[in-house]
Amino acid sequence: MRFTSEQRLDDGVAERGFILDGIPGILWTPESGSGPLILIGHPGGVGKMYPRLADRARHSVAAGFTAATIELPGSGDRPRTAEADEARVDLRRALAAAEPVDEIVERLVSPLVDQAVPEWQATLDALLSVPEVYRPVGYSGGVMAIGIRLAVVEPRIAAAVLFAGSFVPRSMFDEARQVGIPLHVLLQWDDEGNDREQSLELFDAFGSEEKSLHANMGGHTGVPPWEGDSANRFFTRHLRGTA
Amino acid sequence: MRFTSEQRLDDGVAERGFILDGIPGILWTPESGSGPLILIGHPGGVGKMYPRLADRARHSVAAGFTAATIELPGSGDRPRTAEADEARVDLRRALAAAEPVDEIVERLVSPLVDQAVPEWQATLDALLSVPEVYRPVGYSGGVMAIGIRLAVVEPRIAAAVLFAGSFVPRSMFDEARQVGIPLHVLLQWDDEGNDREQSLELFDAFGSEEKSLHANMGGHTGVPPWEGDSANRFFTRHLRGTA
Repeated sequence: MRFTSEQRLDDGVAERGFILDGIPGILWTPESGSGPLILIGHPGGVGKMYPRLADRARHSVAAGFTAATIELPGSGDRPRTAEADEARVDLRRALAAAEPVDEIVERLVSPLVDQAVPEWQATLDALLSVPEVYRPVGYSGGVMAIGIRLAVVEPRIAAAVLFAGSFVPRSMFDEARQVGIPLHVLLQWDDEGNDREQSLELFDAFGSEEKSLHANMGGHTGVPPWEGDSANRFFTRHLRGTA
Repeated sequence: MRFTSEQRLDDGVAERGFILDGIPGILWTPESGSGPLILIGHPGGVGKMYPRLADRARHSVAAGFTAATIELPGSGDRPRTAEADEARVDLRRALAAAEPVDEIVERLVSPLVDQAVPEWQATLDALLSVPEVYRPVGYSGGVMAIGIRLAVVEPRIAAAVLFAGSFVPRSMFDEARQVGIPLHVLLQWDDEGNDREQSLELFDAFGSEEKSLHANMGGHTGVPPWEGDSANRFFTRHLRGTA
């Protein structure tokens, strides 16, 4: 991992850009001190999403955590694949025509999960060698399917806030049953890009003994501001007692 | 309204028993100061439920509110009716046999709502003349159908925390659509005495622009402790800014 930039944000948070095996990422740490790491998940496109990602990260840092994100395969400046581009077009067309999307979601999301999860894990290896950053680690956000796979295969992740804002391949419902860590699931009740019934079915499937669903009104980007505090309290319960 | 008892609890909270038109109730107020009133809803039987009701009330008072509850018609020492007793037996039998319960719920809950809601309103008239108690008022708890009717007909109630832990008559779904105040709905995912599908349908039906669903694992009495804080924050947002 190589740091490529460093700046101090107005609230004192240190923001460092890094690159690891060609994948760009950002690490946020407090003005002083250290904290358990929150991995900030997103649908891809760190540059475009920067204001929202930085807000979420600073909110985590203010609650005593450190935070980091990396670019997803096929997003931002990373090489696109013809298969993913084609699947994206197919998905948009199928949704507009109210046709079944299961096969398309499989084609689009499964390869993304297969590639992104080892990248997140390698990032974790590198970030946990930074002095301000320690475990246990939380995963927060989308892509939901990436969060599910990480929760199952990565023992350093002790709790996750999952945003039910993307499609999860049917083939991953068995994986969902294997999730055992505490989960806090956010669902936007009227999310235009998300199947509410499937989200509820998936929530039911998770094997975790502690899981909570917070459903709020509005579309994909309408998560109410107090849910950020709620997520921080969830992570504080599960990550700060055991550091 | 006549106060019948007064004691100071160990955290300084003043607990006063009262009676109004033959209905017994309890009022909890802070050691000093005043606050918006939270009506503590429950399934009936104030005596038997006292420890849990007092815990909830003290938790509300600690967050800057006052709190009160009254006995429900047909519960505790209040006269029972043959119709309600019969409906209760029928409901238990139908649930055990996995038979439809809609007609029984109608017979059991609708008359309860019709009688309890004016009693809560008369209680409100009386309590709001106590110097420590002011409006806006919140309703918190079950019976859910009582909370729904109050939310529709009682303009002094500005926000409600509803516990999806009891059956709501089908005939009240239209009323649910008329609810406009902010709602915070608690659902126990594995509640043995509650129909999850119906609860989700009802949540969907509520007309409120701001409504949140918090679903947690476990049965009827397994609401996790942090949901009490979450309810307090909800009421603080909606009752304290506008007093």
